[in-house]
Amino acid sequence: MSSDLTAGVSHADLANAIRALSMDAVEAAKSGHPGMPMGMADVATVLFTQFLKFDPKRPDWADRDRFILSAGHGSMLQYSLMYLTGYEDITLDEIKRFRQMGAKTAGHPEYGMARGIEMTTGPLGQGISTAVGFAMAERILNARFGDDLVDHTTYVIAGDGDLQEGISHEASSLAGHLGLSKLIVLWDDNRISIDGSTDLSFTEDVKARYAAYNWDVSAVDGHDPVAVAKAIAAAKLTDKPSLIACRTTIGYGAPTKANTAGSHGSPLGAAEIEGARKALNWPHAPFEIPESILHAWRHFGDRGHKDVDAWVKRLARSPNRLAFKAAIAGDLSAEARAALHAHKKAVSESKPKIATRQSSGNTLDVIVPLMPEMMGGSADLTGSNNTRVKALSKAVQKDSWDGRYVHYGVREHGMAAIMNGMALHGGIIPYSGTFLAFSDYSRPAIRLGALMKQRVIHVMTHDSIGLGEDGPTHQPVEHIPALRCIPNLLVLRPADAVEAAEAWEIALDAKTRPSVLALTRQNLATMRVEHTDENLSAKGAYVLREASGPRKVTLLATGSEVEIAFNAREKLEAEGIPTALVSMPSWELFAEQPEAYQKAVLGDGLRIGVEAMVRFGWDRWIGEKGVFIGMPGFGESAPYQELYAHFGITAEAIVKAAKERL
Amino acid sequence: MSSDLTAGVSHADLANAIRALSMDAVEAAKSGHPGMPMGMADVATVLFTQFLKFDPKRPDWADRDRFILSAGHGSMLQYSLMYLTGYEDITLDEIKRFRQMGAKTAGHPEYGMARGIEMTTGPLGQGISTAVGFAMAERILNARFGDDLVDHTTYVIAGDGDLQEGISHEASSLAGHLGLSKLIVLWDDNRISIDGSTDLSFTEDVKARYAAYNWDVSAVDGHDPVAVAKAIAAAKLTDKPSLIACRTTIGYGAPTKANTAGSHGSPLGAAEIEGARKALNWPHAPFEIPESILHAWRHFGDRGHKDVDAWVKRLARSPNRLAFKAAIAGDLSAEARAALHAHKKAVSESKPKIATRQSSGNTLDVIVPLMPEMMGGSADLTGSNNTRVKALSKAVQKDSWDGRYVHYGVREHGMAAIMNGMALHGGIIPYSGTFLAFSDYSRPAIRLGALMKQRVIHVMTHDSIGLGEDGPTHQPVEHIPALRCIPNLLVLRPADAVEAAEAWEIALDAKTRPSVLALTRQNLATMRVEHTDENLSAKGAYVLREASGPRKVTLLATGSEVEIAFNAREKLEAEGIPTALVSMPSWELFAEQPEAYQKAVLGDGLRIGVEAMVRFGWDRWIGEKGVFIGMPGFGESAPYQELYAHFGITAEAIVKAAKERL
Repeated sequence: MSSDLTAGVSHADLANAIRALSMDAVEAAKSGHPGMPMGMADVATVLFTQFLKFDPKRPDWADRDRFILSAGHGSMLQYSLMYLTGYEDITLDEIKRFRQMGAKTAGHPEYGMARGIEMTTGPLGQGISTAVGFAMAERILNARFGDDLVDHTTYVIAGDGDLQEGISHEASSLAGHLGLSKLIVLWDDNRISIDGSTDLSFTEDVKARYAAYNWDVSAVDGHDPVAVAKAIAAAKLTDKPSLIACRTTIGYGAPTKANTAGSHGSPLGAAEIEGARKALNWPHAPFEIPESILHAWRHFGDRGHKDVDAWVKRLARSPNRLAFKAAIAGDLSAEARAALHAHKKAVSESKPKIATRQSSGNTLDVIVPLMPEMMGGSADLTGSNNTRVKALSKAVQKDSWDGRYVHYGVREHGMAAIMNGMALHGGIIPYSGTFLAFSDYSRPAIRLGALMKQRVIHVMTHDSIGLGEDGPTHQPVEHIPALRCIPNLLVLRPADAVEAAEAWEIALDAKTRPSVLALTRQNLATMRVEHTDENLSAKGAYVLREASGPRKVTLLATGSEVEIAFNAREKLEAEGIPTALVSMPSWELFAEQPEAYQKAVLGDGLRIGVEAMVRFGWDRWIGEKGVFIGMPGFGESAPYQELYAHFGITAEAIVKAAKERL
Repeated sequence: MSSDLTAGVSHADLANAIRALSMDAVEAAKSGHPGMPMGMADVATVLFTQFLKFDPKRPDWADRDRFILSAGHGSMLQYSLMYLTGYEDITLDEIKRFRQMGAKTAGHPEYGMARGIEMTTGPLGQGISTAVGFAMAERILNARFGDDLVDHTTYVIAGDGDLQEGISHEASSLAGHLGLSKLIVLWDDNRISIDGSTDLSFTEDVKARYAAYNWDVSAVDGHDPVAVAKAIAAAKLTDKPSLIACRTTIGYGAPTKANTAGSHGSPLGAAEIEGARKALNWPHAPFEIPESILHAWRHFGDRGHKDVDAWVKRLARSPNRLAFKAAIAGDLSAEARAALHAHKKAVSESKPKIATRQSSGNTLDVIVPLMPEMMGGSADLTGSNNTRVKALSKAVQKDSWDGRYVHYGVREHGMAAIMNGMALHGGIIPYSGTFLAFSDYSRPAIRLGALMKQRVIHVMTHDSIGLGEDGPTHQPVEHIPALRCIPNLLVLRPADAVEAAEAWEIALDAKTRPSVLALTRQNLATMRVEHTDENLSAKGAYVLREASGPRKVTLLATGSEVEIAFNAREKLEAEGIPTALVSMPSWELFAEQPEAYQKAVLGDGLRIGVEAMVRFGWDRWIGEKGVFIGMPGFGESAPYQELYAHFGITAEAIVKAAKERL
């Protein structure tokens, strides 16, 4: 130990404090995962006492090292470390309330529950993949602001399950490609998973695989603190991301359950805990940490104060200080907003007949140069997603981090997790693209972003049968309703170039939720031809054309179907049937409006919903007597105009349905 | 060439026929992907003329080799091969109608559109992963029926995108673990993806990665037919799955677009095609295949006739013939159905208070021993999912394929694709488990199974906040509605042990759709205490308890919330409010019932929906004046009883809501 303050306290004492808290808290909760914290206590102790740059008193310090517990079921490892090093949100009382209602010590680490938890983990593979986004954000901001302000490492503890999940392959491959040398993954190589030995299903050579990704790879005895320290120190010196295989014993210390799946996901039980106390030479009562050991741990927690103080001084005298603070704040700047409004006005006048993916791209051309925080990308569909801004087309690569674009490769899931990581890191507003049908691939990470309340913008083009010939695999028919199911996710489906600009304004302003922008491949007429700076789409739905008299019919449509409904309205009005047209770019935002507004928009007459999706969810808006015009199921391969006719999503079908019901 | 029938026809002639058809068809369609078929024409020609065991006239022959075009965008490669070798569904006219309405030559190969297409591909990574399921099915059936009846190879053509997708990592790792030596992947190593060179984002050492998975790996010039043949021949001799890196030039033959992303996904254009015709020495008109070349191709297509004839004879004299035919038919046997009904009767009498995951496991204990086609598994949650049958717990492993269980590892997405492959292969009814929250991970493969109309049974336990302490990452709140959005997918959420048995009967009888069984972690009382052999759940919803008088209230509930609604009904009835209780195990099946039945079940009174999910979709059943009792958004970490109280999903809340509205 490095200081008088820790005199008489051994590494084992420090590590055993983690083990004891973990087994005691799981026992008290009557549920949880003691095995991993007990197995990785030594590694984590080395990391937190010798390497991690952090200050528990200032958990939001921008230049801290990031620690991601990818194997989130081992949450007691993290809570123990947070309590021991002195994070204020994790008190001993919170440890005792592990997994209880309202506790900050939830079953898995939950972002936002306690300051110092960098992200929510639990669904395997997400942590290690999101960490790649953290590490990329560090390099991007370093390129912008220099070593003085941004120079930190991202550490991950990952388990076998993380490395089996496909998402970790995607993100790890990209991390190797980008040479993310400040990403260090400590793999808990305990060779036990829930079903038993990993030999049952997982016998690949993980180290060789990571070497193939162009990672630096090493292996150590995870219970040898000197070896672990040496490996981390070496990892910090390479020019590659590092994987350190830490050979550990799950449930280390438990007399009969160590090295078995029995210690993975259940309380050890009183007898086993008693045996572990003996084996570990830890005679203290449950939840009791001897003063000397707590003192030593707190000492390590205090080490970072001076780093923060020095950094604060550097920031104060940095010529970049205002830009840095603006990046961290991440607000849509007044300049960018004005440019966006001017763009909106221009398109409402020029009335382009273009795809909304192109409208989105044109909007990005306007705002991205004014918003240095925005970082674009695509999962190998750049030209199709219109996500790359002409004036700033340089992509980040291994030795050039000053680009504004990421080639994510064909890795939708990894991409979404990486964007979560960038957003969580701060200083970056990530957006990137794929086809809407492939939102299914990204879905677990989209959900996690919604749960963590992160502003991540998913550009999803080719948003219906309107993509035509690629056929049913590529045609989303259920994806929009399925995304609408996810809490705290904004689904935005603009109808034209004006709404596309508004969608971007909404997504950028939505600092506590991710957004999906569903955009067409096919061209659409401009529907909004009278300019207002007010963002009408922000109400979720609004009357685009009022009926000429007392409403008999209200047509409710989204995206590309607004134009079809517009044509139907013209026909109905021509036949003397007063018909209103409502554009509904976002159901979530509309549902948040006052009831009176909702009623006024929906009207009293016959309501017809029009959307090239399945009906699921529409009954809420059209009511029991309403009509839905949309998809009966999967699509087909054909030119898109023929598909719309084939599936009866036409102005004529709307008119016919209206007249039948009136 | 091996025969007089092919005299004067060179390998290049054969391969160029594919190239010409591909570029011509894409040009005529004005959309599509010419680059891959032109690049892989040589490899495919070698495969189809020298190795593939198939008979175009009997495309359903059970012992054929399987050919999976994982890079499904190169569909014209497959259609060209099918036309040239003589598959009856793919005529020259169909080739000319590529990507047109109703054509069998859809944008991507669509299973069911033409006999001979083994699976639908297009979403990257699915083909190679599903192929692992085909190859596993082959080994499992081989263990059961011997080499005489089952002895074939699964060939895959995969692109860079397939290998970037996480799902391919999952399935490939498992394939290596299982030593699937009869799986051979031909990787189109053309180093071009949509954004440009794969160097932009994909620089891992793929061959080293696959070696780390314990695959046999080789590399060849993909335009050298002798080298390709040698590599395939060698791959067939190893005891591992094989990856053959075929270095090719995308758009081979196109004078300026070859080796560029420009040939990937768009028609080449008239000038480029003219240049390609010259470069390839192919002077024939569009869609014209010289008689000698077609004749040669047809000769290779005819080679397999004798193999089929011999196999048919072997089957006829096999003692296994009836069992083999029954396996291929895959019907729920009369014996198994009777046992299932007896089990249902027994539990309606014993009235166990157990979790539906356990009820499901108990049902499997009854039927799996009687249904040798059923192959269980779990993504490393065996004990939690209750998917392993006690009497038949042996798992398949590398050298022992007579097991009835698969340890899939922590690989939900790969697992779902592999199950699709087993179902498509035939002879196996795959089922396996994970947590419902992780249905998001499997979702792209679940969707593809629904699109391909495959009977795959996804056991998904821990189906709500009822899982308790693991918290919001593990608590599905939107997953059931999100799954209900997928066309042709059955979502079954049984309320008790009786409905759990019925759910299995439904899923096994549903030969053209996949099912999700959503099952609880927590114990539930038995609600159905009067036995009938009739499967009441098969109507989707039914009156579990009628009101004591003219209905004032109808409670509509699913799964674990039926018991809560039952208690509410007791209270309401006690207060003199006639209340019916409807159990709704499957919305899809209920929606298929006659309108009169639906109306009778739903009733005229106040309708209250009760489900521990978000409201999305419920308005269809509860109507505009209805009430919904469920989740407002994400869950929390706490004991489950407290969570139900916290979120107001209680009998008391239902009673209160009813009385407020009456």
